[in-house]
Amino acid sequence: MYQLLNDLSIVEVSSFVASPTAGLYCAQMGAEVIRVDHVAGGLDYDRFMLTEEGRSLSWENLNRAKKSVALDLRSGEGRELCAQLAGQTGQCITNLPERSFLGHAAMQAHRPDNRTDMISVRIMGWHDGRQAMDFTVNAASGYPLMGGPEDWDPDTAPPVNQILPAWDFITGAYCAFALMAALRHRDATGEGSELRVPLGDVAIGTVANSGMMAEMLYRGGDRERLGNAIWGAFGRDFRSKDGVRFMVAALTAKQWAGLVEAFNLGEAIGSLEKELGVDFSAGDEPRFTHRHRLFDLFQNVASGLKYAKLEKRMAAAGTTFEKYRTAHEAAQDPQLVGDNPLFGPSPANPSGFGYPAPRSFANIPEREAGDPAPAPYLGQHSEEVLAERLGLGSGSIGDLIDRGIVRTSDKNNR
Amino acid sequence: MYQLLNDLSIVEVSSFVASPTAGLYCAQMGAEVIRVDHVAGGLDYDRFMLTEEGRSLSWENLNRAKKSVALDLRSGEGRELCAQLAGQTGQCITNLPERSFLGHAAMQAHRPDNRTDMISVRIMGWHDGRQAMDFTVNAASGYPLMGGPEDWDPDTAPPVNQILPAWDFITGAYCAFALMAALRHRDATGEGSELRVPLGDVAIGTVANSGMMAEMLYRGGDRERLGNAIWGAFGRDFRSKDGVRFMVAALTAKQWAGLVEAFNLGEAIGSLEKELGVDFSAGDEPRFTHRHRLFDLFQNVASGLKYAKLEKRMAAAGTTFEKYRTAHEAAQDPQLVGDNPLFGPSPANPSGFGYPAPRSFANIPEREAGDPAPAPYLGQHSEEVLAERLGLGSGSIGDLIDRGIVRTSDKNNR
Repeated sequence: MYQLLNDLSIVEVSSFVASPTAGLYCAQMGAEVIRVDHVAGGLDYDRFMLTEEGRSLSWENLNRAKKSVALDLRSGEGRELCAQLAGQTGQCITNLPERSFLGHAAMQAHRPDNRTDMISVRIMGWHDGRQAMDFTVNAASGYPLMGGPEDWDPDTAPPVNQILPAWDFITGAYCAFALMAALRHRDATGEGSELRVPLGDVAIGTVANSGMMAEMLYRGGDRERLGNAIWGAFGRDFRSKDGVRFMVAALTAKQWAGLVEAFNLGEAIGSLEKELGVDFSAGDEPRFTHRHRLFDLFQNVASGLKYAKLEKRMAAAGTTFEKYRTAHEAAQDPQLVGDNPLFGPSPANPSGFGYPAPRSFANIPEREAGDPAPAPYLGQHSEEVLAERLGLGSGSIGDLIDRGIVRTSDKNNR
Repeated sequence: MYQLLNDLSIVEVSSFVASPTAGLYCAQMGAEVIRVDHVAGGLDYDRFMLTEEGRSLSWENLNRAKKSVALDLRSGEGRELCAQLAGQTGQCITNLPERSFLGHAAMQAHRPDNRTDMISVRIMGWHDGRQAMDFTVNAASGYPLMGGPEDWDPDTAPPVNQILPAWDFITGAYCAFALMAALRHRDATGEGSELRVPLGDVAIGTVANSGMMAEMLYRGGDRERLGNAIWGAFGRDFRSKDGVRFMVAALTAKQWAGLVEAFNLGEAIGSLEKELGVDFSAGDEPRFTHRHRLFDLFQNVASGLKYAKLEKRMAAAGTTFEKYRTAHEAAQDPQLVGDNPLFGPSPANPSGFGYPAPRSFANIPEREAGDPAPAPYLGQHSEEVLAERLGLGSGSIGDLIDRGIVRTSDKNNR
């Protein structure tokens, strides 16, 4: 972990993917991130996949490098401790509703010296309070009805859901940014901020930011189904003689020239240009417009060559391409994982299972990257955090534990 | 635009989606973001869709609320001006290679008073320098080979590319966060940072963070194809009697209870529980394991009811659901756009076309949101920025314009 944020403590009261991701990115940059959960674990504590011993591989990756405090969040006393922790710390990421025990004002009330400088980042469903999750906002976005093979009948084609919970991950990264922006503003002015980030707004807002909303309104209808082709440029999947599937993209003049060279198609494309009266090196437009003619030429060459040969030629010509991997293949790929400095040695994960652990996406050549840290056991830091943050003595903490308001590490009782 | 970052200026030398997005998020929070492009426009200046007059709807959305400086970036003089602008400003987002005129050291060399506090965020392809773009890193991630209908033969099923360039958008948001983290560190220590964020690392790192990499290694193979079902929980698309497709999800006990109530399936599910010897309210596991039996029950009810009726019942029962929209339907949906405070009135876009414009994803109830600003014309702020940032007089700027090193607004010559 880099130590860019080592002066920062954040309380995270969260579950599922988006809010834990926001905390994860901060933790991987050196922040102290204290995840507070219900004593039995949050709603995501048993998220698939589980090991035979019942440890969630999802949870232990999304909560890497954090501390864990376990409180009885169904009791008034546990809830009060949680709000106190957030308020005393001063910055909180949560996906609890505003109308819960963790509303902004409740945290604000616990700021020391009556300061009004609390910063909260709250992930919501839809802006109007309706529930949502990644798959439901995605249904509204328009993307699932654009996916799938090009030859599907538009009138009967089913939606194709994304497997990647992309809206969760965009929202998580955005919330980490929004928290930092609010901290910067507080450093300059002393003012706190209450930030609300609806998952649904990230989705429909991205539809707008990408230009797709303007496009649909401008054309007055939907875009044609493109299958695996890239919209407005040259790119698609191809298949080699030996059945290897790979993606190819050419968005710039240089990429296009390299691709034509790798496939040795200079002459054939010259003829096609003459036939159609276009210049394919002039930009995206002719390559996209006549993509089916071009796809045929490229697939024809691919069908005659083994992937190893094609790969060599594409690499030599500076083509932008990539072989499709299954997820299991990707996990074992030396280029992606084994030889990639993004990954460090496996720390002692709660599951006891060892595997490559990622550092922060950002690497900083001049700084020490450090080794990845494991996720905590649930409640592992309850005593430490309550003592440090709230100044509770060992007697008070012992009493809270005895009464079930606080729980300590579940290392041996899972 | 909120004014959380109104003390911050950022130079952005970028193209396509990821790097412009990082600048966009900062601009929507009030930062001055100066996008510097080649005089003819960056590689993305003509990205689809184009209006009849040749204005890119993609570009004008991804570059909203920024300033534009146009320099001849093929000339030594233009490149020097660009590096000077970045260095004098102190923070830069770029997707140019490190071995270009905009390497970190080149910007650092222009810091005032020989300060060594430059912050650069550089978006790369793969960590090892290989070229990549959203669709190619996605091919490597494993997701495209998991997508598509459940009944496809795993041995012959084609990959299904995501239409959403999710890796670009995650990378953009992450880079905005990374920039803020580095600024915070500089505020505390005076030290600069050189951050490199490979698009490929965001992809394979997300595969790891999500727990999917650990899952595949733990199971020693690939996950079964799920079609539109949610992994490890209850959720899928259904179709009403009148042909409306909608997504339903139940991840919590409350969501499950609401869903069963909305579909009036208490009795049938009770019988199924007895038959299978399971308790579906106990958690994700039984609901996921027996999903096909459950899907049949729910689809059977859906097939007998019109969507309007189903929707009413699901809303009343607090179910998490959403109707699929096409992108054109989404763009015109009052709930998503028209009545959503995320969107403001259309500013005067370079295209001349008017449509709803998004604010920042984060809303801050106590602050003034302001109206969305338009993207600039290419070169619109060349003179202003060169005068303010580099202290150039009108004579020097006039000379640079005369010699084609600097270009002013392309409002009337596009």
